[in-house]
Amino acid sequence: PLCLCWALSPAAAATANIVLLLMDDMGWGDLGAFGEPSKETPNLDQMAAEGMLFLDFYTASPLCSPSRAALLTGRLPVRNGFYTTNGHARNAYTPQDIVGGIPDSELLLPELLKKAGYTNKIIGKWHLGHRPQFHPLRHGFDEWFGSPNCHFGPYDSTERPNIPVYRDWEMAGRYYEDFKIDLKTGEANLTQLYLQEALDFISKQQASQQPFFLYWAIDATHAPVYASKQFLGTSQRGLYGDAVREIDDSVGKILKHLQQLGISENTFVFFTSDNGAALISAPKQGGSNGPFLCGKQTTFEGGMREPAIAWWPGHIPAGGVSHQLGSVMDLFSTSLSLAGLQPPSDRQIDGIDLLPVILQGKLIDRPIFYYRGNELMAVRAGLYKAHYWTWSNSWEEHGKGIDFCPGQSVAGVTTHTQEEHTHLPLLFHLGRDPGEKYPLSFASEEYQRAVEHISGLVQQHKATLVPGQPQLNVCDQAVMNWSPPGCEKLGKCLKAPESDPKKCSWPH
Amino acid sequence: PLCLCWALSPAAAATANIVLLLMDDMGWGDLGAFGEPSKETPNLDQMAAEGMLFLDFYTASPLCSPSRAALLTGRLPVRNGFYTTNGHARNAYTPQDIVGGIPDSELLLPELLKKAGYTNKIIGKWHLGHRPQFHPLRHGFDEWFGSPNCHFGPYDSTERPNIPVYRDWEMAGRYYEDFKIDLKTGEANLTQLYLQEALDFISKQQASQQPFFLYWAIDATHAPVYASKQFLGTSQRGLYGDAVREIDDSVGKILKHLQQLGISENTFVFFTSDNGAALISAPKQGGSNGPFLCGKQTTFEGGMREPAIAWWPGHIPAGGVSHQLGSVMDLFSTSLSLAGLQPPSDRQIDGIDLLPVILQGKLIDRPIFYYRGNELMAVRAGLYKAHYWTWSNSWEEHGKGIDFCPGQSVAGVTTHTQEEHTHLPLLFHLGRDPGEKYPLSFASEEYQRAVEHISGLVQQHKATLVPGQPQLNVCDQAVMNWSPPGCEKLGKCLKAPESDPKKCSWPH
Repeated sequence: PLCLCWALSPAAAATANIVLLLMDDMGWGDLGAFGEPSKETPNLDQMAAEGMLFLDFYTASPLCSPSRAALLTGRLPVRNGFYTTNGHARNAYTPQDIVGGIPDSELLLPELLKKAGYTNKIIGKWHLGHRPQFHPLRHGFDEWFGSPNCHFGPYDSTERPNIPVYRDWEMAGRYYEDFKIDLKTGEANLTQLYLQEALDFISKQQASQQPFFLYWAIDATHAPVYASKQFLGTSQRGLYGDAVREIDDSVGKILKHLQQLGISENTFVFFTSDNGAALISAPKQGGSNGPFLCGKQTTFEGGMREPAIAWWPGHIPAGGVSHQLGSVMDLFSTSLSLAGLQPPSDRQIDGIDLLPVILQGKLIDRPIFYYRGNELMAVRAGLYKAHYWTWSNSWEEHGKGIDFCPGQSVAGVTTHTQEEHTHLPLLFHLGRDPGEKYPLSFASEEYQRAVEHISGLVQQHKATLVPGQPQLNVCDQAVMNWSPPGCEKLGKCLKAPESDPKKCSWPH
Repeated sequence: PLCLCWALSPAAAATANIVLLLMDDMGWGDLGAFGEPSKETPNLDQMAAEGMLFLDFYTASPLCSPSRAALLTGRLPVRNGFYTTNGHARNAYTPQDIVGGIPDSELLLPELLKKAGYTNKIIGKWHLGHRPQFHPLRHGFDEWFGSPNCHFGPYDSTERPNIPVYRDWEMAGRYYEDFKIDLKTGEANLTQLYLQEALDFISKQQASQQPFFLYWAIDATHAPVYASKQFLGTSQRGLYGDAVREIDDSVGKILKHLQQLGISENTFVFFTSDNGAALISAPKQGGSNGPFLCGKQTTFEGGMREPAIAWWPGHIPAGGVSHQLGSVMDLFSTSLSLAGLQPPSDRQIDGIDLLPVILQGKLIDRPIFYYRGNELMAVRAGLYKAHYWTWSNSWEEHGKGIDFCPGQSVAGVTTHTQEEHTHLPLLFHLGRDPGEKYPLSFASEEYQRAVEHISGLVQQHKATLVPGQPQLNVCDQAVMNWSPPGCEKLGKCLKAPESDPKKCSWPH
């Protein structure tokens, strides 16, 4: 009987449902629990109070596509191919004309979860490539409601196509046409659609008693920001805040739904964001990175430190706070662990299993690597962060008003030329100086000791690094979403131009 | 009998004890509950969870002495005399050689509380003048343990005296001599002394069943920052964080003591700070203003928005959050209300009674005036803040490395010359833009409407303003703490130089 208990306990964990709530361009400082001065996120704050707050949680890239590819593969973008070699240290993503996408050789979380009997659904933004071979249902997801790319324009589908919204294999319509976003008022009911999809999926899975993985990757806080009519004008923070309030309300409804169905104790929920707030879109369409330096597109804390909350009633002690250095890639390993699966052993996995942290309060010693494109810009170990390269953006882009660090300027740190510091890295103590304003003196003993340690980690990391084939080098107008599958049923097929592959241009 | 009930109910409130916990140079962003990334203030966070968090609470001056004079008089420094006319818009305080202090004509909170039978104690920093006529026991306090000025050096009492520490009427010793602060390690047991004083006073008052007012104005977070041995090295944030942890621990002990004595439901406790974090002392000796602009000495949000928590079990609903625009001056009026007293009617009182806010969740429409010395620099009404003058500090001071906005620079806002905007104020929406980075367009309807409203408030304010006699104009080496009362018993009397009164120099 004792053996039976031992066998039951992991088995119970092995069927835990997994819900990842991934925000788009939401910053560390956007939630009340993280110090946003309007404190308008009661449901997320409650989620944190009932679960565990991660204060030192990171994305794997300061830009959306690589971050999401890292989350779903458990691997750094430089390994899984979500980077470019067209320029040094350039952020690249999957716009409409991108030719590449997630390689078949990569093993995605939903593919692996299938082996444990999970049903997998993605709601919202995929962003791992939009050509047929990259379709999420070819990479382990069973269901999809959402879009392959960001909800950018052209807003009229004449010169180039509006982004499609898919239901499973086929498009269900297009943004700005069938799925309206009023750019003037910011009104759109999309978060409500994504919420309903989530609630329905959860209900269906609960009824079928099949374990599930729900990847809720909504995009209301990515410019152009939107909210439903009932939330418009309800925030102190303007439209961006309205979107956050709607998301907060939706998360509350999802958690309540799990509780009402009686499956909250068997469902692990994690909330985080894909990269720091897009300060370039602030104040009207951008969020907050709290006390941190710069934002999206940069490898300063504002670009890569994320709000993060784990929730799992009955398993995670309420009111927990963790300083574990965490990463979106850990959600890959942690989810596998929840499913009773081992991570693949034939490749380097960068994520770690956070369950010992979450359930037993352990702290696991591990570094955080801050990549920008093909360059390792910075490394954090413990409270120290060493910058090997610094760059905000070019003077040229900055001169055009593109500012990743508005109102912030730290001499020699927020540089507008790519500055190499590989021989003498800039070192910050993130406890005393979370805002990365005061580099430690090169001559200090503290500097010597910390840099020696971090340099060892870098050496080790680089020695074993096998970069993947870069997927984000080639762009071609012909591959845009002219005629996604299902377009003919809707009369929404557009004619693609001739193929004309080019090197993509990545200015940042 | 119904009449009796009516009579009893206010009487019960009329004897509520009052504890004001006033921090020194602690910033809005220094507590976990306000988003400090190390989240090392469990007791204060718990106090907030059990009480009410004020997110829009302000000091009356970005510098210590005027802020404290405002708190204790309920009046703006420009009214109570705690300002200078030696220069335009200059911050002034009470250093050792200041001749002025709190005028006898001002009515201080403890003087008024005496009428309701309160015993009043100040523990820590007085800062309202150190010459005999300004002694706190001449202005309503019954007991004092602490110092009249900041705990600056000279650290050896040769060229000029070290600051005395008083017990009631007489000095008990001097900082750096009898009350040690190790400037090298930051070790000092002063917070423990101040804690024990508080606990003892509370016990004594509880035993005597006399209502009390305890003003706990400790200074561990003011440079030179210090902490007791048991707290040194315990924070992620360095010495400053050690000091915060010790204070957090002490606040926890004070609240627990009230609970254990069974008087927590009859004791109103309020926690706040005298001004924003001193970024000039960061990162080793300065705190955090979270997402706000600049710090101490400035009239940007970082200089004047304060952490604030009200706690009163059984009266304040747990977990409350208020966006009431509050001020340290409200603590004067609120305390009087708690004592069943009316504020003086023979003078302008700037504080308001916050009890309707705290107990009934009301929101009272009132502006916040941001003064720097003799100038009204800015005004907040609702979510709008209009700057009539901008100034961080002079180019000359900035060139010497004195930086009130390290790493921050907003063109036309963080100016190094005093810039007048009285005809066309700079307007910010603090909900969408808490960091004061994006002035609204002068041409917008929103600007016109908000500025018209605020300008009306300014006109009204200025029309009725009667400035007090400025107290901070004259300095004299002869008035320093050479021979405080009681020095002879300790053999610590020093010889004062000849009187040589001069205009004080206020560079900021």
